[in-house]
Amino acid sequence: MHVGFIGLGSMGQGMAANLLAAGHDVTVWNRSPEPVKALQAQGARAAETPAEAASEGVVLSMLADDAAVRAVILDGGVLDALPKNGIHANHATISVRLARELTERHAKRKLHYIAAPVFGRPDMAAAGKLNVVCAGHAASLERLQPLFDAVGQRTWPLGDDPVRASVAKIAGNFMLASAIESMAEASALTRAHGVSASDFLEIMTQTLFAAPAYQGYGKLIAESRYEPAGFPVRLGFKDVGLALQAGDDARVPLPFAGVAREALLEALAGGDGERDWASLATIAARRAHLDERDAD
Amino acid sequence: MHVGFIGLGSMGQGMAANLLAAGHDVTVWNRSPEPVKALQAQGARAAETPAEAASEGVVLSMLADDAAVRAVILDGGVLDALPKNGIHANHATISVRLARELTERHAKRKLHYIAAPVFGRPDMAAAGKLNVVCAGHAASLERLQPLFDAVGQRTWPLGDDPVRASVAKIAGNFMLASAIESMAEASALTRAHGVSASDFLEIMTQTLFAAPAYQGYGKLIAESRYEPAGFPVRLGFKDVGLALQAGDDARVPLPFAGVAREALLEALAGGDGERDWASLATIAARRAHLDERDAD
Amino acid sequence: MHVGFIGLGSMGQGMAANLLAAGHDVTVWNRSPEPVKALQAQGARAAETPAEAASEGVVLSMLADDAAVRAVILDGGVLDALPKNGIHANHATISVRLARELTERHAKRKLHYIAAPVFGRPDMAAAGKLNVVCAGHAASLERLQPLFDAVGQRTWPLGDDPVRASVAKIAGNFMLASAIESMAEASALTRAHGVSASDFLEIMTQTLFAAPAYQGYGKLIAESRYEPAGFPVRLGFKDVGLALQAGDDARVPLPFAGVAREALLEALAGGDGERDWASLATIAARRAHLDERDAD
Amino acid sequence: MHVGFIGLGSMGQGMAANLLAAGHDVTVWNRSPEPVKALQAQGARAAETPAEAASEGVVLSMLADDAAVRAVILDGGVLDALPKNGIHANHATISVRLARELTERHAKRKLHYIAAPVFGRPDMAAAGKLNVVCAGHAASLERLQPLFDAVGQRTWPLGDDPVRASVAKIAGNFMLASAIESMAEASALTRAHGVSASDFLEIMTQTLFAAPAYQGYGKLIAESRYEPAGFPVRLGFKDVGLALQAGDDARVPLPFAGVAREALLEALAGGDGERDWASLATIAARRAHLDERDAD
Repeated sequence: MHVGFIGLGSMGQGMAANLLAAGHDVTVWNRSPEPVKALQAQGARAAETPAEAASEGVVLSMLADDAAVRAVILDGGVLDALPKNGIHANHATISVRLARELTERHAKRKLHYIAAPVFGRPDMAAAGKLNVVCAGHAASLERLQPLFDAVGQRTWPLGDDPVRASVAKIAGNFMLASAIESMAEASALTRAHGVSASDFLEIMTQTLFAAPAYQGYGKLIAESRYEPAGFPVRLGFKDVGLALQAGDDARVPLPFAGVAREALLEALAGGDGERDWASLATIAARRAHLDERDAD
Repeated sequence: MHVGFIGLGSMGQGMAANLLAAGHDVTVWNRSPEPVKALQAQGARAAETPAEAASEGVVLSMLADDAAVRAVILDGGVLDALPKNGIHANHATISVRLARELTERHAKRKLHYIAAPVFGRPDMAAAGKLNVVCAGHAASLERLQPLFDAVGQRTWPLGDDPVRASVAKIAGNFMLASAIESMAEASALTRAHGVSASDFLEIMTQTLFAAPAYQGYGKLIAESRYEPAGFPVRLGFKDVGLALQAGDDARVPLPFAGVAREALLEALAGGDGERDWASLATIAARRAHLDERDAD
Repeated sequence: MHVGFIGLGSMGQGMAANLLAAGHDVTVWNRSPEPVKALQAQGARAAETPAEAASEGVVLSMLADDAAVRAVILDGGVLDALPKNGIHANHATISVRLARELTERHAKRKLHYIAAPVFGRPDMAAAGKLNVVCAGHAASLERLQPLFDAVGQRTWPLGDDPVRASVAKIAGNFMLASAIESMAEASALTRAHGVSASDFLEIMTQTLFAAPAYQGYGKLIAESRYEPAGFPVRLGFKDVGLALQAGDDARVPLPFAGVAREALLEALAGGDGERDWASLATIAARRAHLDERDAD
Repeated sequence: MHVGFIGLGSMGQGMAANLLAAGHDVTVWNRSPEPVKALQAQGARAAETPAEAASEGVVLSMLADDAAVRAVILDGGVLDALPKNGIHANHATISVRLARELTERHAKRKLHYIAAPVFGRPDMAAAGKLNVVCAGHAASLERLQPLFDAVGQRTWPLGDDPVRASVAKIAGNFMLASAIESMAEASALTRAHGVSASDFLEIMTQTLFAAPAYQGYGKLIAESRYEPAGFPVRLGFKDVGLALQAGDDARVPLPFAGVAREALLEALAGGDGERDWASLATIAARRAHLDERDAD
């Protein structure tokens, strides 16, 4: 299939590569040129502008946040470039508000906006093992399925309103934040009573919580290894903010999100914005003055 | 091995039965007679008093809470009955304070107190699949190992201070409460935006959160099935209280525990103390007035 | 003094009237015509546009929120209309972000932006009894002093950066929200133990908390009188949001603001957006199911 | 009137002295002898035991907490010593649970338990300016009125169930904790935006929050003066715990109390248990890393 791909960050590179590997004809665009060259070496064509990448009628994008989507997709002329019935599938985590706006703006031009956020880190993107949550125009979803198969291990369709996929992704990231905060507090508690985070989390993540989210972040906490960040505090704060905003819009109180937000903000205040958000464990320990105790 | 077993509730019955099945010589005691008869039919001897069950020198107990442990073990004469170097292994979830007191009171009499709380529900107790977290006198732990093997799938030793095993169990139950509250809030959020709890939690519990804790409670939330309770709100409130108390004693703030506590208390105020604590999902939905919206 | 006044809502009407009463020459503008006529009857001149109201060189504005300030002041051409060294004093409660933006945009055009938010309700505006918190260009503040004297009982200058006055107003409103939530929870607690909100709050507001904020809102809670709203839940939610946003910008965690936010959002979810924010007392009571108890 | 007075701490001393000054015949008891001698010099008689102080039939007590009341009143034989229809008025802040137990234990012996907690610090006790909140047997309250008049500026009766006065006192102290936390967060916010706590709190405590609670604690925060403590973090933590426990007993969620509790616990973890609880302001500042910023 002819497909455009916009946004070759750590996630987008792997995704675009897997599309090429699956035999698709991919035209890529990225703000900086290096990732473009790497993909050209794998057979991609390079577009001069985002709009050019959209001209074939199906374009995927994987951009950082709301601001990047506005700048590249809306201001970049992608909607103007898409032919009638063209499809834009957005893999990024964006706000429910922007998802709704994009849905409407595409519809007005007889284009199809598909929300297709993904769960998985860059290594899973590279391995084609993402989980793709998607929603939007049914026939378009069907048409995109071979592309989703190339980048993901499984597709999770949520119906025809793109907002649904966006909110599911936001809620999922909020659950991740909660899992981390929960491990952070629990291991501060055990540590203060003589059980190391490592010993405690080993039990938890091999029994009741034997799941990727807990095992991955539990390992970082057990080893106090927060750099380089897989997912930094800065973005975690943004995503918990998206959950709270989605809660505002639909009038849903989210007290855990409020608490996670404060902890992430305390981490930001301490200058830890670029550390992995598993470093919430250091905030829980700081509030209990645990390191000072160990130093005694 | 000759062993006494005190407390034949839904957990204790299965554990004692597995000790018998493994060939041990078990003397049981329970406040009410029915479970005693059932175990006699499987080969157990019945003790008249808790003290009698302890007279052979090794006694296990599985009682409801701090008050039951005080009433049955301390007031029941178990420490008087245990011979010198006798072992008492406590499988119940009790406070850090009582764990410390028991440790000291056993030590004064040259007895060994072993904390051996378990993770797992009654069906896992019946199947001999519990996870046994334990701490205390090393030689005693070694001696108890065949018993732990009979009731559990794996033993997780945490050193020589019994308090360590107690706090690990308490922290684990707090992580369960947090997992439930997190699913409760996240699915209220998705539901308000058009994604059912069932659809959302299916994705989560088959991907990032594919672990027993999430799958078990996620299913209850997806199906709004809170009766009969596997673990009731009333006990969940008690256990989150144990976490907060353990935090008080060691000066560890636990903001998530505070929030979970308020939600469980709201459930109690609404008369839901005997429903499964997965019904925290109804509290999150109530705060967002979701059922009234559906009724429109 | 020749002065323009933009925004004749319930607050602005009283303020403009007091300016006239003090002998100033006032040109008013308002989106809807009725309040303009009322002030013309008191001697004001009517401007056709916001820009016209600014043409004399000193303009005050009292608009609802960030959006209104953007629409009327920025899109309304006020900055274009102000002569060099002109002064715009903004009495509204706006975000720290917009305060900073306005400061910069005025400075670029050699204009002076003064933040002059006020504490006080419409009756105090009508009586000329507001408390005016202000910050900005020192000589401009001096020039404005007679105007502040006409509308307020006292002026509280906070230096030359307008953001300072904005954040003080936002923090003050957050303290009001906290005072209300505190009374809401405390009186739910006493009520559940047999002491009416009225009896309890009478003691508090005549002793330790004998201050206008507590006496005013305490009375509304004691009498369950939430309509018509002095200050509605909807605006309270907005203002607590401004505090959280100001905290984000400066990396200051505000856990009380987070909790107040959830309670206000629960009120909004229940359809109480237009009731006085003292109705947080009904949220605290709802969480404890107090009304159902009384009905028994 | 003949009256016994038990407990001559910083509050009790002033109260007993005022009873003497009003012409009452006071028999005092205290664990340590120094305050007894001081009061003997003012005309008091010294009792050898708490029971002796109760033998005349009316005894007041002002003890530190639940444990002290149990040790001195219950274990000290006060109930045995009181003649039939004797009155014990308790001025201390104790738990709702103990208030209920004391009510029942007095009633069983045909004695009258009066809860008469007071608002006011030691200087107000010395000046006879306390606010006395009271509840219990009506005729006994009437009999005690001259005593309350001697120690207080005003009496606030709450009916015949002593629990009512206890819960009002607990709820009042929770409101104080909330007022402090609210000032702590608000002034961290303004400080981060360039407005000192001193400037900000001066405005607040002279306008909307012109009440003793805010002015007293606001001054401590503005001056960062937390030693010597008027009321230490340690006792504040205990009292917020009493509010939460009273909420548990009556099923009333108190989210603000939960947040205040975490902040006080963080202060305790940092070794600040004996500083004034106004030092919550340092916790809010610590979470925002404000002191490190100032040091730059």
